[in-house]
Amino acid sequence: MPSRDPWLLTPGPLTTSATVKAAMLHDWGSRDRAFIAINRHMRQRLVELAGGAGRYVCVPLQGSGTFAVEAMLGCFVAPKGRLLILVNGAYGKRMARICDYYRRDYKVLEWAEDRPVDPAAVAKALAEDPAIGHVAVVHCETTSGILNPLAEIAAVVAKAGRRLLVDAMSAFGAIAVDAREIAFDALAASSNKCLEGVPGLGFVICREEALGATKGHSPSLSLDLFDQWQAMEKTGQWRFTPPIHCIVAFDQALKEHEAEGGIAGRGRRYRENCRILVEGMRRLGFETLLPDRLQAPIIVTFHMPADPKFAFETFYDGLSERGFVIYPGKLTVADSFRIGCIGRLGAAEMQAALAAVEAVMGEMGVASGSPRKRAAGA
Amino acid sequence: MPSRDPWLLTPGPLTTSATVKAAMLHDWGSRDRAFIAINRHMRQRLVELAGGAGRYVCVPLQGSGTFAVEAMLGCFVAPKGRLLILVNGAYGKRMARICDYYRRDYKVLEWAEDRPVDPAAVAKALAEDPAIGHVAVVHCETTSGILNPLAEIAAVVAKAGRRLLVDAMSAFGAIAVDAREIAFDALAASSNKCLEGVPGLGFVICREEALGATKGHSPSLSLDLFDQWQAMEKTGQWRFTPPIHCIVAFDQALKEHEAEGGIAGRGRRYRENCRILVEGMRRLGFETLLPDRLQAPIIVTFHMPADPKFAFETFYDGLSERGFVIYPGKLTVADSFRIGCIGRLGAAEMQAALAAVEAVMGEMGVASGSPRKRAAGA
Repeated sequence: MPSRDPWLLTPGPLTTSATVKAAMLHDWGSRDRAFIAINRHMRQRLVELAGGAGRYVCVPLQGSGTFAVEAMLGCFVAPKGRLLILVNGAYGKRMARICDYYRRDYKVLEWAEDRPVDPAAVAKALAEDPAIGHVAVVHCETTSGILNPLAEIAAVVAKAGRRLLVDAMSAFGAIAVDAREIAFDALAASSNKCLEGVPGLGFVICREEALGATKGHSPSLSLDLFDQWQAMEKTGQWRFTPPIHCIVAFDQALKEHEAEGGIAGRGRRYRENCRILVEGMRRLGFETLLPDRLQAPIIVTFHMPADPKFAFETFYDGLSERGFVIYPGKLTVADSFRIGCIGRLGAAEMQAALAAVEAVMGEMGVASGSPRKRAAGA
Repeated sequence: MPSRDPWLLTPGPLTTSATVKAAMLHDWGSRDRAFIAINRHMRQRLVELAGGAGRYVCVPLQGSGTFAVEAMLGCFVAPKGRLLILVNGAYGKRMARICDYYRRDYKVLEWAEDRPVDPAAVAKALAEDPAIGHVAVVHCETTSGILNPLAEIAAVVAKAGRRLLVDAMSAFGAIAVDAREIAFDALAASSNKCLEGVPGLGFVICREEALGATKGHSPSLSLDLFDQWQAMEKTGQWRFTPPIHCIVAFDQALKEHEAEGGIAGRGRRYRENCRILVEGMRRLGFETLLPDRLQAPIIVTFHMPADPKFAFETFYDGLSERGFVIYPGKLTVADSFRIGCIGRLGAAEMQAALAAVEAVMGEMGVASGSPRKRAAGA
């Protein structure tokens, strides 16, 4: 076991920098002027990152990213509204589950987990069902690691005069979503993905005019973005105790994101991480679920090797003992596992991870990660 | 401005120990075995602190304490149930607001903010209204700092064959609530009050049999305690990304709570903090809102001084510059401010706070903190 913390090759919680964590070594009062200024800056910076300055506001929310997605759906879809949910993985399905709880009317368009959302099918569904007011989509589905064609989907939704809600959780901060080019009413993300903060905070970037029309929609006090927004605008303070340390760490993480070159710089490192990982794993015989053109540089799904000597638990534990934490699969279509490319990790860490994969395969006596059975006698 | 962090004489966020904060200097995977063990231990310890071993389970929840209270009400009060809410401050009122969002049927019994809940009135209300299935009460209302007579209320509720839900947020860990003596179905609290963790985590201690009957009640996926519980029992893991660093800090905070002598030891320090504060402030002419017999050793409300030279903003800023953060008043019945006794502070810090109060009064030219106008010419 290495003496360092494990490197988290997962879609979050992920590895954060020492300086982000060190920001949590202080206590702050929630009404403290410096803390209020940190919140103001954080909200402004997040709006800037979404290209929303002037027209959008950021409403942060305590809890995990799912809390923010639930808050987004509960506020933006009116109680008598109807939502079209585009599903090609667990996070799309989760949005449908939220609507079941909220008894919101919705329709699902579904694709296999290894297929991207098809904008033409969305256009057809909207043309056929004028009662649909909003469309919800996951930008990068970490179930498979697939990147959905957000710009094309947004264009179709806008053309049909409907409103788009985006679960941008896993990619925000590394893959650009610019409100000047992609029309959305709300976009939910969190502190603990590509922005490399610690978990405990979600946020929703909202078109201000649309948010202003959501009063009375939320079925939940805690998750009422309208109420949260109004209170923050009035006093600069949170309605209920904020996760102070997480916020101060996130402020530091945003500074480090900016220093790395913002979305472009962060995205560049992750794409390079992804390239090293995929090339290295292919050299070891592994196969990715997705073709490269559908693969987001966030998390990569690999087919389980066919070699009967390969046991995932042993593989996972062997990597974990060497200080690399990977992620089990979540697919229904294929037996698989996942390795993430995000967090405070770079080329050296990805190379080290590959060396660990090779070493553990050697211990297991697995010659190749190939998911294809060899021909008899080969 | 002192070089240390400000001491937070507030009802949370509050001052935590350096060792609690230092626990956040590491990253953990959410499926990591050591992290799963930390969660198991945390949940067990919280049940033990409530005297609930064997019959109760702890369900932790991301977010602030209000999220946990909302989750408790949404799960335990069935959609067709009726709730009696006992109100003598802002947190009781907040429970009514949650029920408005959830469209749950409820009745409010209300007292002035400086009066405790009257168990006889509760008994009468329950006798008159057989549709009421549950009663909700705040143990210590930090609006005023008043301690409600929880044991007497619980006895009345049990005698009437109804179920009790407790918002024990501000006092849990310093004032005993033992399930073997006080009958409750659920009790909500958080990481960041008397247990001296950092904010970001709430929890509900639930009578297991009662929790088992709440399936399908929650109006919210994120706040569904039944679903959260089932997932944790099955896998030891959280449904959605947990606030890892906050949890690991809370585990450390629970160890320090135990080392201090648990609830008895923690309560003793806070009662001493409260005694030093109240005696010292009285020496300076200030008057408490509450008589000592109603005062919980959590936060003390003081009447605003009558001297026209006393300006609260100046007072607050003067203390803040000296490294002491106090809290504005929240009362509707009187002009006031509040000073907390909780967090990682002891006699020396309370004495230092009193010296700072005296110094700031001197700077303002305020001779006495008395809220009574002096007779002319006196």
